[in-house]
Amino acid sequence: MTDFVHTPSLPPPDIVRCAYMELVVTDLAASREFYVDLLGLHVTFEDADTIYLRTLEEFIHHNLVLRRGPVAAAAVAAFRVRTPADVSRAEAYYQALGARTERRLGGFVKGIGDAVRVEDPLGFPYEFFYEAEHVERLTQRYDLYSAGELVRLDHFNQVTPDVPRGQKYLQDLGFRVSEDIQDAAGTTYAVWLHRKQTVHDTALTQGDGPRMHHLAFATHEKQNIIAVCDKMGALRISDRIERGPGRHGVSNAFYLYILDPDGHRVEIYTQDYYTGDPDNPVITWDVHDNQRRDWWGNPVVPSWYTEASLVLDLDGRPQPLSQPAGVSEQDVTVGADGFSYTRGPSGVQHGEGHGDGPQGFKLGGQL
Amino acid sequence: MTDFVHTPSLPPPDIVRCAYMELVVTDLAASREFYVDLLGLHVTFEDADTIYLRTLEEFIHHNLVLRRGPVAAAAVAAFRVRTPADVSRAEAYYQALGARTERRLGGFVKGIGDAVRVEDPLGFPYEFFYEAEHVERLTQRYDLYSAGELVRLDHFNQVTPDVPRGQKYLQDLGFRVSEDIQDAAGTTYAVWLHRKQTVHDTALTQGDGPRMHHLAFATHEKQNIIAVCDKMGALRISDRIERGPGRHGVSNAFYLYILDPDGHRVEIYTQDYYTGDPDNPVITWDVHDNQRRDWWGNPVVPSWYTEASLVLDLDGRPQPLSQPAGVSEQDVTVGADGFSYTRGPSGVQHGEGHGDGPQGFKLGGQL
Amino acid sequence: MTDFVHTPSLPPPDIVRCAYMELVVTDLAASREFYVDLLGLHVTFEDADTIYLRTLEEFIHHNLVLRRGPVAAAAVAAFRVRTPADVSRAEAYYQALGARTERRLGGFVKGIGDAVRVEDPLGFPYEFFYEAEHVERLTQRYDLYSAGELVRLDHFNQVTPDVPRGQKYLQDLGFRVSEDIQDAAGTTYAVWLHRKQTVHDTALTQGDGPRMHHLAFATHEKQNIIAVCDKMGALRISDRIERGPGRHGVSNAFYLYILDPDGHRVEIYTQDYYTGDPDNPVITWDVHDNQRRDWWGNPVVPSWYTEASLVLDLDGRPQPLSQPAGVSEQDVTVGADGFSYTRGPSGVQHGEGHGDGPQGFKLGGQL
Amino acid sequence: MTDFVHTPSLPPPDIVRCAYMELVVTDLAASREFYVDLLGLHVTFEDADTIYLRTLEEFIHHNLVLRRGPVAAAAVAAFRVRTPADVSRAEAYYQALGARTERRLGGFVKGIGDAVRVEDPLGFPYEFFYEAEHVERLTQRYDLYSAGELVRLDHFNQVTPDVPRGQKYLQDLGFRVSEDIQDAAGTTYAVWLHRKQTVHDTALTQGDGPRMHHLAFATHEKQNIIAVCDKMGALRISDRIERGPGRHGVSNAFYLYILDPDGHRVEIYTQDYYTGDPDNPVITWDVHDNQRRDWWGNPVVPSWYTEASLVLDLDGRPQPLSQPAGVSEQDVTVGADGFSYTRGPSGVQHGEGHGDGPQGFKLGGQL
Repeated sequence: MTDFVHTPSLPPPDIVRCAYMELVVTDLAASREFYVDLLGLHVTFEDADTIYLRTLEEFIHHNLVLRRGPVAAAAVAAFRVRTPADVSRAEAYYQALGARTERRLGGFVKGIGDAVRVEDPLGFPYEFFYEAEHVERLTQRYDLYSAGELVRLDHFNQVTPDVPRGQKYLQDLGFRVSEDIQDAAGTTYAVWLHRKQTVHDTALTQGDGPRMHHLAFATHEKQNIIAVCDKMGALRISDRIERGPGRHGVSNAFYLYILDPDGHRVEIYTQDYYTGDPDNPVITWDVHDNQRRDWWGNPVVPSWYTEASLVLDLDGRPQPLSQPAGVSEQDVTVGADGFSYTRGPSGVQHGEGHGDGPQGFKLGGQL
Repeated sequence: MTDFVHTPSLPPPDIVRCAYMELVVTDLAASREFYVDLLGLHVTFEDADTIYLRTLEEFIHHNLVLRRGPVAAAAVAAFRVRTPADVSRAEAYYQALGARTERRLGGFVKGIGDAVRVEDPLGFPYEFFYEAEHVERLTQRYDLYSAGELVRLDHFNQVTPDVPRGQKYLQDLGFRVSEDIQDAAGTTYAVWLHRKQTVHDTALTQGDGPRMHHLAFATHEKQNIIAVCDKMGALRISDRIERGPGRHGVSNAFYLYILDPDGHRVEIYTQDYYTGDPDNPVITWDVHDNQRRDWWGNPVVPSWYTEASLVLDLDGRPQPLSQPAGVSEQDVTVGADGFSYTRGPSGVQHGEGHGDGPQGFKLGGQL
Repeated sequence: MTDFVHTPSLPPPDIVRCAYMELVVTDLAASREFYVDLLGLHVTFEDADTIYLRTLEEFIHHNLVLRRGPVAAAAVAAFRVRTPADVSRAEAYYQALGARTERRLGGFVKGIGDAVRVEDPLGFPYEFFYEAEHVERLTQRYDLYSAGELVRLDHFNQVTPDVPRGQKYLQDLGFRVSEDIQDAAGTTYAVWLHRKQTVHDTALTQGDGPRMHHLAFATHEKQNIIAVCDKMGALRISDRIERGPGRHGVSNAFYLYILDPDGHRVEIYTQDYYTGDPDNPVITWDVHDNQRRDWWGNPVVPSWYTEASLVLDLDGRPQPLSQPAGVSEQDVTVGADGFSYTRGPSGVQHGEGHGDGPQGFKLGGQL
Repeated sequence: MTDFVHTPSLPPPDIVRCAYMELVVTDLAASREFYVDLLGLHVTFEDADTIYLRTLEEFIHHNLVLRRGPVAAAAVAAFRVRTPADVSRAEAYYQALGARTERRLGGFVKGIGDAVRVEDPLGFPYEFFYEAEHVERLTQRYDLYSAGELVRLDHFNQVTPDVPRGQKYLQDLGFRVSEDIQDAAGTTYAVWLHRKQTVHDTALTQGDGPRMHHLAFATHEKQNIIAVCDKMGALRISDRIERGPGRHGVSNAFYLYILDPDGHRVEIYTQDYYTGDPDNPVITWDVHDNQRRDWWGNPVVPSWYTEASLVLDLDGRPQPLSQPAGVSEQDVTVGADGFSYTRGPSGVQHGEGHGDGPQGFKLGGQL
């Protein structure tokens, strides 16, 4: 039985969007090669211990902070709020939740002003800030535009053992659900939630948590993602291509998952859809639908379900992990006891069938 | 020890290019759905038992004949020759090889004139013709251009137990090698051969043969291939997407393999390179190089190695199969006894390393 | 001196986005050919006098209504508001402005409920509604996806003689400026304003007004826009391609302008940028910057500045036109008295130079 | 009356393809910026006076030589022949034509061996060679792949006053016609000729000649061409974008024309079609067809018709120019006495109509 997070009586902060992530990396030079030389992120500032990076179309100081440290981990997932007052609102909100908070008027990292960091009820380190240094927005700097150019931070994805618990907490915080994956009994295995007008600013994936599953950058076109793969082949690091490229069922985005030198997972993502209307239809996918995670039915590699980055508490120590109480998405869809279908009972589209009809699998497929 | 096909003293026909394939299909309506409704091939002519199809930029009558029959098979792989006299030259050449031949001045299929069909030394049914009915070349009929438009027949791919034997026979016939896959001992596992100025008009893949591995159509751009995948997802036939999309190591083309209702394999292919110079460099790939068949290191599904279409003799009966004498590419690269590497001994590029150094695999990868 | 529209003391409605336009067309069959057969918009409903069309990713009833009528015109530009109460808020707001309003609880067109239409202070017919019939969102119906697929209504563009007056009125209404075009004296020639998180929901272009300059649909990729051009060539209606394709300076979008059978201008548009942050930087372009309207410096055809669609009052009569008091953008940038530059005084980027330095023109260019 | 070049009784050399051009440039550093920094061609070798450049997929030493000199000009257009003996065959052939020839066993430029240069009957400097140094073919060096990557030299285009005379000479030399532009009287204004299996290795454009109209590089996709435009915008050199991007009528290729610092015209080109069959259909376009040079009907800028590069004789002196005897393509299609049509008499496709029916022009178009 889910022990839901209580709903504070205080209003939540008005969150604008996911804004940046701080990653602890164990070999800064290797990480620089990955994020700057391979992926082409733009350096706003760097010193011996830290690199601040941004995407082409970003105008605040950074979307990613790489900080040298002994244990690879996600140090914080930061959200921008609408007004300076929303930082105080966030602080009060989390204090009402009983969460540990830390406020720094001068900010926690370069380029960001007054901010509050919290250990949230799921164990994740979140930051909320409004003040940010504006830097050159490189949107039309096509002289800097690489074949695989990343143009925007799109979203985070978090691993948590109890997805319904996390979903309720994030909805209280003001996030809206765009899509989810459920079984016929109504169990939710994953959920996508947004503040900006895309499919998500963050998502919850069921698993041992709290861990950070990935952060995602947006590109302009599908061919930009293919260019990243081709370059990784040329650099003979194709073993860091974990999954894809492919078309997501959920979100409809064209995607790729790659792994940085510490195993932090990065998604490259393009062309999801507008979700800004108040009655934007929520899409529920059947967990047995073979096209839910890859529209082309290509199998999800096991590591994608099992591996993720540790997250840190406010003292910089890795958070301990808890395991899910129920069965996992991988268990119910793959292997001896699981099943999936490509076509539901009557060839129905997503969200309707429950797999008792014609199914259809890849010849040679492992899913 | 390979029992090589002897070299005739007669000159071979001057082959221009692969031109069309005739496939026997068991359910013509289902095949029409696949090739016309899904893939958008253009119908030149059809009746109750046969459909003649062509690609957008073709000006001869067809690139594909679908013929209703009891057993799914490839009935013929047809090549166009440079002059009418080359048909007689082909007939004489194969008779000198001791091959069974059949000449029909009126052609074997609609739209094609004087032609000779042969049972070649590898057991494959080949046709050679010059005369062909010209039809409207639809190159600029963008009113007919679908999102996944196929614009040209690109190549065939044949399964044969003894690749070096087949290679020598095809080189005698005038084909030139563009790329191959070998091991350190010099064993050739697969070879690509061309007449037109692309990487291949046909290729040989080691396995139980003679069988037809696939036929391939060219598209203009990578996004056209993605559109085919997306459409197969929408039609809930993603289980017919066998492998890809991906970037080939060999040929550098962007590719996709899909299966028609009879299991005939179709490749969609784009952007290989020019091979027309007389000294075009041959590329030899190490069989252990994990990027040889997919530049991004994505695993080859087992069915791709094991499944293929039967071929017919000139009486329309399936040819019996022979097995390779040696080990297979799949055996030497996958599983308990096989191995592959992403990086060779010193991070070298293709064709140089032999896998005794750092290797690199996908997390969760099966290759 | 601009006679500004006064600011009501009432709160404006919370506008979500531009939602649909109703166009009067003189030959419904010809318009259907253009919007359905050529552009591939999806028919939600049609009868003898009206066609309701939507884009691939739309979930409300329509984005475009074509209504047969004697005089080609834009009948209304409709915005969706956040709540049912915002319709009343809109009605009160415009009444406070002294504008004529008409409320219909059952809606003005099929698929839309309670709505208010107004004759706004600039003479434009605006509609505000919340209630809308949900229809199948075709996002993943790739079986319907054409090579030039339109996926979203992106924005309107309106012609008005006094742009600063219009800007102030729209900002009062809650729109936020993303970009504008000014001269050194601070005269604004055009302005882009948004509610949703893109560059605009509507824009103001200086000229004889009120007229509707165009409505714009979004595609996924640049190649989709090229496909529309190619198809218009194949249909031998390339004379309906008015301007482009090209890259906008303002908005950075890849664009195309085409003309429907009545001369209504349609833009096809892709890949502008995120504007959702509260402090999104406003970009001001110098009117003399030759790359402001086309990043590649291709000339704007004169018709693009001079032609536009009439708009109707609430009785369905065309609104009379007023002329600008000052000089036009075309006058100050083209011809004997105008000038433009490609490079500013010191090779500066947009928004900084005033053209007294090296300039650079197309050889043979007319701009 | 055309004074045709006589047909030698000797066999012509077996030409494989256009291989490289040598350009004289007046500011080598400025040219390097253009060809290396902007266009991303790869430097094989450079010294104080010369830069040798190649495209990504080239395996011979270079496709372009930039040589510092006092007068901007095209020094030679070089073709590769099939065998070493074809160089002698070329020498003898041109001597039989009475042309001046110069043979150098060690080659004229670095990386090329035995070669003959000629002043051909049209006044152009041609080179024929077989021997060439092989260099790394960068096909899969995606770590070097820029957003606008050029992958192959595609063709030359030459300006000559008497196109039929030039056509007959080139056909004698072994070139085959793929497309041409004629009027109803049978006058040919331009012709495209090929050896390799694309639309052309060279083309003839009517005008004051001999001059070199342009050289063309192939890219993989349409988006690569757009990337070049975007980058030129970012560098504030959009005034060097002369024409396009667009879709050619002739060749069906997607194209762009840009101008180097000396005014040498470079085309970037992608996706024409296969022409390798012996009976490849020739396409004749009506000179009045508004879509012949741009499928979208966008006007050809006057400079494109009038400007071109001088060519040098074997002593390095510019060849004097002769003017055409008849009217020009520009004269018959544009302005007071010319006309064009978008739709022929009965809406017919290319090559059939003569413009006496409905015509159709761009609103505001200048064609």
